[in-house]
Amino acid sequence: MIDPLASPLLADLYEYTMLQTYLEQNMEQTAVFEFFVRRLPENRNFLVAAGLDQALDFLQNMKYGEEELAWLSMHFPAHVIEYLENFRFTGDVHAMPEGTIFFRNEPILRVTAPLPQAQLVESRLMNLINFETLIASKAARSVLIAKDRLLVDFGLRRAHGAEAGMLAARASYLAGFSGTATVLAGALYAMPVFGTMAHSFVQAHESEIAAFEHFARSHPGSTLLIDTYDVEEAAKKVIALSRKGLSIRSVRIDSGDLARHAENVRKILDDAGLHEISIFASGSLDETRLEDLLDSPINGFGIGTSLVTSGDCPWLDCAYKLQEYAGRPCRKRSEGKATWPGRKQVFRNFDSNGKMNGDVLTLDSDNQEGEALIIPFMKEGKRLEERIPLQEIRQKTLENYETLPDNLKRLEFAPYSVEISDLLTELAESVDRRGITSL
Amino acid sequence: MIDPLASPLLADLYEYTMLQTYLEQNMEQTAVFEFFVRRLPENRNFLVAAGLDQALDFLQNMKYGEEELAWLSMHFPAHVIEYLENFRFTGDVHAMPEGTIFFRNEPILRVTAPLPQAQLVESRLMNLINFETLIASKAARSVLIAKDRLLVDFGLRRAHGAEAGMLAARASYLAGFSGTATVLAGALYAMPVFGTMAHSFVQAHESEIAAFEHFARSHPGSTLLIDTYDVEEAAKKVIALSRKGLSIRSVRIDSGDLARHAENVRKILDDAGLHEISIFASGSLDETRLEDLLDSPINGFGIGTSLVTSGDCPWLDCAYKLQEYAGRPCRKRSEGKATWPGRKQVFRNFDSNGKMNGDVLTLDSDNQEGEALIIPFMKEGKRLEERIPLQEIRQKTLENYETLPDNLKRLEFAPYSVEISDLLTELAESVDRRGITSL
Repeated sequence: MIDPLASPLLADLYEYTMLQTYLEQNMEQTAVFEFFVRRLPENRNFLVAAGLDQALDFLQNMKYGEEELAWLSMHFPAHVIEYLENFRFTGDVHAMPEGTIFFRNEPILRVTAPLPQAQLVESRLMNLINFETLIASKAARSVLIAKDRLLVDFGLRRAHGAEAGMLAARASYLAGFSGTATVLAGALYAMPVFGTMAHSFVQAHESEIAAFEHFARSHPGSTLLIDTYDVEEAAKKVIALSRKGLSIRSVRIDSGDLARHAENVRKILDDAGLHEISIFASGSLDETRLEDLLDSPINGFGIGTSLVTSGDCPWLDCAYKLQEYAGRPCRKRSEGKATWPGRKQVFRNFDSNGKMNGDVLTLDSDNQEGEALIIPFMKEGKRLEERIPLQEIRQKTLENYETLPDNLKRLEFAPYSVEISDLLTELAESVDRRGITSL
Repeated sequence: MIDPLASPLLADLYEYTMLQTYLEQNMEQTAVFEFFVRRLPENRNFLVAAGLDQALDFLQNMKYGEEELAWLSMHFPAHVIEYLENFRFTGDVHAMPEGTIFFRNEPILRVTAPLPQAQLVESRLMNLINFETLIASKAARSVLIAKDRLLVDFGLRRAHGAEAGMLAARASYLAGFSGTATVLAGALYAMPVFGTMAHSFVQAHESEIAAFEHFARSHPGSTLLIDTYDVEEAAKKVIALSRKGLSIRSVRIDSGDLARHAENVRKILDDAGLHEISIFASGSLDETRLEDLLDSPINGFGIGTSLVTSGDCPWLDCAYKLQEYAGRPCRKRSEGKATWPGRKQVFRNFDSNGKMNGDVLTLDSDNQEGEALIIPFMKEGKRLEERIPLQEIRQKTLENYETLPDNLKRLEFAPYSVEISDLLTELAESVDRRGITSL
């Protein structure tokens, strides 16, 4: 059986057509590919690196099963199949740790491997890292706006398939969300899972108060959904049940004017002395709506569609580009898509308050002031360290946010300086000169 | 091992908290849920139903393994685990066949099953059907604009994870694309796969012409990527190789002013008598760009990001709502989110030219003129028919496009009439009256 989540056939066909020619031309020397984002989306002051853990798993476990080889053998000659039969990824990976803040043109992943290997893994590496980085970067905006309020991923139903639902839960938690509603993410990533009730639960009962009472009896300390019929009337039923001794932790409002309803409900509950029952809101929320609701008495938010689809910008302008082959630096010069050649490093500088105040993009061989952000993660196809626990990555991400200048934390645009080193500029020019003569 | 693509834990936690209460309250009578889209996105004149095949697979194979039960038993009482140990979905499914054109409020899937079952499957059914319908509906726009030009899905790298890449390939093919670049989609869905070469292939060579020659020798009749350095210069190299007897089927341009480059290249190739070499374009394309390029000599297009993310609108405003429980019709009345109660049917009328000219949304028990679009697909948990081959669904979709009024085929907004039957309006009013008294 082919496992679609791990299969090396989860690749563009051209990876295999190129493989065939590389093998036939004995082009198996060392290639260096880097993954980076060409430019930030309009509404992102920074990006948050994510997806490395899944990328390393993919590389370390990559192999061809019988069914995969059978399909390929219908389309490729025997020598390609022979090469793949015992295929293992034997390359090195350098990367920014997950949760690192980064900017345009800064590589967050570098693969150093024989050319056929480094090329074959392109599609799936991009597929994983583009998506998790996209979601972590989107989630970061809500986290920085919501401050200490509870934020829960509610997006599974509108995520783009199963893996998107899972990885969105992981990436948003990594970026500072409190947890997810997706059970399987709780089971597989050991992250907190939150759940309430659906409107259908209320509707399946003859009356709303019966639904509330049944639910509160099954689940002491639970959250009741109060907007199926009339929010304020439902809040009064919560009081009645509370007086009967049922334990209710919070109420959820999922529609209408959330701020107005929350104020009404807060007053209704407070007047009854139920100050400890919190208010949770959901329904078409994103970081902009969150900002509008900060003055309301809402204690937590469920964010779904806009988070898991990165609704305002559902992709990154990312690339996985050949930067060096057989010791020779490479550069793509296509119009509007030119790239920086060579193996690169990013150095980050901080001011006396510990705030980031400028990066330098340079060659890996260079030595600049500041913190080097790209470090080794895999050597000859094996992880160098154990998997970092997700909670630990999340904690580190929150610490990284502390180093952000205040203007970058806001939703409005703010610039950040990424300097290109002289060394890198000179290399690009020399590659261009060589390139023109080689036409 | 848990299979994330089939696990019943791929669900929101509230499905399980509600399950517990349903079991404790003996609420296991028949529930009817329907999946529909509340309103069409701004740039869609119609939607194309897709994802049913995956939904039926999920329902028919749904079961709990040891690891899943182990996780659940840490969070739920023993009677819930006992219920799930031998769980099988035993309900009925009615739906519009994949490839059916539909509009707002028209259900495309109806689940009739004991309430706990119908509720448990909510998240994954929505996750599958929202996404495939989203992509099929996006793809349809390009298909109707491009007419007989080749359209290939190039989106895997920016799709939201593995399953999104796979299902986007399937949904776009179903909607009339010619095929995909994703190898695994070719292997698992038996659909056409297309591949060319990457810029890295050209860059890994000392010269562009060496790259072209090596590739054409490995792959007679292949496509050469000609924009790594200078498009027009590269086109001249294609001529030189052609004169050496190498077989080249087409050239791909991936950057810059595609129309201008294509015209230059067409002239260069035609002047050399190479009329049969076709031009393929890619790079940030969508249906709007396609429309601009219709007068250019481009013969085919690779469409990636905008297709597989449905870039202009990455989700549908869809819902899976309880419409009836224990024979009692239900209706959600939340502000801005009210729904039509009861089991429904859609009847479609056609004019004398075979063009669609109005739908009626009514109750399943009603009998209106026109074609009934919702038909049975699953009875007591078993598919009623064999899986329909994907090619057959695609053919049917193309036939459905023939019934579209011309104005709905264009990119500009055009309206379509969906009438609500008197019977349905009356039922909604009676549910509202009952609802108010039951508060």
